[in-house]
Parts: sequence; structure tokens; C-alpha cells
Amino acid sequence: MRQIGSPTNSLLKVYRRALAKGTTREGWLAVEGPFLVEEALAAAPAVRTHSLLMGESVGAKFAHLVERLPAEAEGVQVPDRLFQQVAQTQSPQGIAALVELPSHNLDSILEGHDLLLLVACGLQDPGNLGTLMRSAAAFGASALLTLRETVSPFNPKAVRSSAGAIFRLPLLTDLEVNELLPRLRAARVRIVAADRHSPSPLDQADLRGSVAIMVGREASGLPPEIAREASLRLSIPIRSGMDSVNAATAAGVFLYEAARQRGFKY
Amino acid sequence: MRQIGSPTNSLLKVYRRALAKGTTREGWLAVEGPFLVEEALAAAPAVRTHSLLMGESVGAKFAHLVERLPAEAEGVQVPDRLFQQVAQTQSPQGIAALVELPSHNLDSILEGHDLLLLVACGLQDPGNLGTLMRSAAAFGASALLTLRETVSPFNPKAVRSSAGAIFRLPLLTDLEVNELLPRLRAARVRIVAADRHSPSPLDQADLRGSVAIMVGREASGLPPEIAREASLRLSIPIRSGMDSVNAATAAGVFLYEAARQRGFKY
Repeated sequence: MRQIGSPTNSLLKVYRRALAKGTTREGWLAVEGPFLVEEALAAAPAVRTHSLLMGESVGAKFAHLVERLPAEAEGVQVPDRLFQQVAQTQSPQGIAALVELPSHNLDSILEGHDLLLLVACGLQDPGNLGTLMRSAAAFGASALLTLRETVSPFNPKAVRSSAGAIFRLPLLTDLEVNELLPRLRAARVRIVAADRHSPSPLDQADLRGSVAIMVGREASGLPPEIAREASLRLSIPIRSGMDSVNAATAAGVFLYEAARQRGFKY
Repeated sequence: MRQIGSPTNSLLKVYRRALAKGTTREGWLAVEGPFLVEEALAAAPAVRTHSLLMGESVGAKFAHLVERLPAEAEGVQVPDRLFQQVAQTQSPQGIAALVELPSHNLDSILEGHDLLLLVACGLQDPGNLGTLMRSAAAFGASALLTLRETVSPFNPKAVRSSAGAIFRLPLLTDLEVNELLPRLRAARVRIVAADRHSPSPLDQADLRGSVAIMVGREASGLPPEIAREASLRLSIPIRSGMDSVNAATAAGVFLYEAARQRGFKY
């Protein structure tokens, strides 16, 4: 492993910025901690690890991760105090990586059959978006699409909350709703709105075949102009007097119901 | 409304401590912000508001809340800078209250029929516990029980994440598992473990009648010594290679499935 001792080293600067922001200028994801680094390495070759940064005192502890580093990736060791300066988590564990997610496009995603797409329409809380990514990967979603004005899936808190799901879930971000909806219709994907005001209960609808489940933002739900465009508007049947469940929980329940109707065939 | 101008006033000290900690010495809940204050007032008379604290500049804005204050409750107005000193949220909105939740005991809860109990066994994240309270109230749970070593439902972050559900959900906290399980059995409540390692899928089980759904802690799930005691151990069928979903999402999915089987009759 290459040793770096200077705090002004350019790779360290890249790590510091990327760990705070989530991504590098090239769009590579910066992840911190052994759990996420291990998940990224486990998702190779689809996910490509470009470099691994470690504090010098954790070399032995994380030797099993260094061993799994691909040949073309760079391993870098720094004094612990330098790692602490670069790290962004509250209790740095001495290991971080820069990884490149596979790139996807809507055309190839829409070629699939029996698509289960989840569309995040304005979600603001990175923890909620990460939790939603985890549910999407767990319930076999074909992809997560996020509209503009939605928190970034690459936000460090979203990545942590995803618990590694970000490495396993096709992602397309910053989509324009007026461009997306016609593309979904052309591909015969039914647009399903998670709409807390709808009288149609989720469990009575047929969610087999290709569907795109649109979920809205935390306080206000799905914007009416998106809900209007849906071919199905469904609500989770909850007790009267209660307004709604948490946005990530709602997405999880919609995905569970869709997966249940499809016989949990992933 | 009574005016207080001194930062050393004893009621202000009570508010400052209680807003940081969640509860007063008497066990009253301290809540901040118009949304939670309004939810508390809406849950009267079961929830009793003892006092309301406001910054002087928000008097007109929140007059509708002051009007709903019960006769025996005290309304107190303080200079805005004093409210800011007492407040614990990042963007204080000038209103807080001390409220008393109804007290419950296991005997009276276990007298009910077709009970849907949720038991939090070691959950650590207050945001998760609040989200879980919100789902429990939404899906008509009879009560939320928390075991010792579980984060407090009165933690300010848990209360905020509950979005008012804490005022509508019977709560029993700090229970001892070795005392709880025999009581559940004696009352013919089936013990259902949310156990990600179980081969029995959630959707194939019969969750009608009285059940207590036991959910574990975030990283490690339900302790094996609790899972062993369950009459049903069920897992959410997820894609292979994925370990689990978020703890609050898992609880939401279990509650949704139970409510679905019961015909969403709340």
C-alpha cells in the first residue's frame, strides 16, 4: 500500500471533499466505514472500487478487505490523525473508499418485463431516501428513479441508511417528471400514485405487470399534478384520525404489497 | 396569559430541562412546535395539557391554540430571547407545552379482544421508534410495549418522528421480558417474532386473533432468547443477498400484513 503523510496530498483532499458531499467530481461515490466498504467490494464487478484509504492502525483489522481490492485499485495508508481529519462520521473507523456505481439509462431499464419501479418525487430527508433504497433492493425493485428536487441518493446519510442497497439497486436521478411520464406510458408501465387522499385501498388493486410507484415528499405527499397523471391512485388503509405513515414506511408497504402479489419472485 | 421575564424563573427551568430530556420529574411530556402542541390539544381529555409556553411575538399566530387550552391549564408568555434559550429544536417556533399522557397498565390492556400488540425489544434509534409509533397508531395497534434497554418513546426525537402518534397510542415502557411473556401467554396472546432468519414467510401466517409482534434492534435483530419463546417466527420474504429492511419499515410491514388480514377493521 502506498503511504501518504502529507495533509496537503491531493488524494486526501479528494477524499475529504467527497466524504462530505457524497461524490467526487467524476461522480464516484465516497463511502466510509468497514460495512459500506465491504458491501461495495461484494458488489464487484458491477461496482468498481477505485481506491481504498486506511488509517495505519487498522491495517491488520481490515486486511481481509485489502485482499479483495481489485488489481487496478489503489490502496493508500495514512497516519491515523490524517484519517480523522478526512473522515466525516462521528466515530471514524479508519477505512474509506472511492467507488464507481454502474451507469444506467431509462431505455435499457424500460426494456425489462414486469417492471417494479419506484419513483421518489420530492423526498427531502436523506435517511428516508436511504431507507427507501434498502426496501427497494429488498423487495426486488427494478430501479429507483428520483425526480429533480428530491434529495440525492449519494448524500452520505442516504448512503449509510441504505445499508449497502445503493450498490445493488439501479439508480437514475434528477429526472424531469414531464419527460418521465410519457416514457413510462410508451413502455406500457402503469403509473401508480401513493396518494393518502385516495379512497382506493392499496390491497384491492392489481399491482402485477409493469408498474411505477410514485411516492411524494414527507409532509405534503405527492404533488397533485403528478397524482392526476396516474392510472391508479391508491392509499394505505389506516385508522381514521391518523393522517399518514412515514414516507419511507409507506414506500416499504407499497413495495411489500406489490412483491406479495407477484409471489415474492425476485 | 401570565408574563415571565426572568431567566431564573422556576417554570422556565422545568421547560428547559424537560425539552432536552423529554419528560419532567412527574413524567409529563415536554413537546415543542405548533404541530405537536396542536396534536396534544386534539387528544384531550385523554391527554392533559398542564401548561403552554409561548414567545411574545407569536401570540397572534397561535391564538387558536391558546383558545383550546383547558381551563385548568396555565398559559405563559416570555420574551422571544428567553424562549430561544429554553427551546431545543434547531429552528424554534415559539411554542411548547407540558402534557400528561394517560397511564395504562398491562392488566387493562390484556382485557381487550383481538389484540394487536407491538413489542419493541431493544430498538436504539429514537427516529426509528417514533416512526414505529406512527405506524402502530396508523394500523390500529392496541398498544406499544417497550422492553428495558429500548430507547425511550419520550425521547424528543422519538416524539417528533411519531408525528403526534404518541398521543393516540397506549404505551407501556421498560418492561422486563421474563415478566411480560408469561403474562401474554396467560392472556392467550400469541407471541410472534419478527425474525429475519426464519424460513416461514410473514404472508403465509395467520395473524388474526390476539398477537404480540416482537421486533428487535437495528443491527442485530431480535435476541435469540426472545425469538425462541415465540409461537410463530416469521420473516419478510426479501430478495436473496439482501440481509434485511430497516427496523421501523419491518415493523410497518408486519403491522400492515396483520391489519390486512383483519380487513383493516380498526
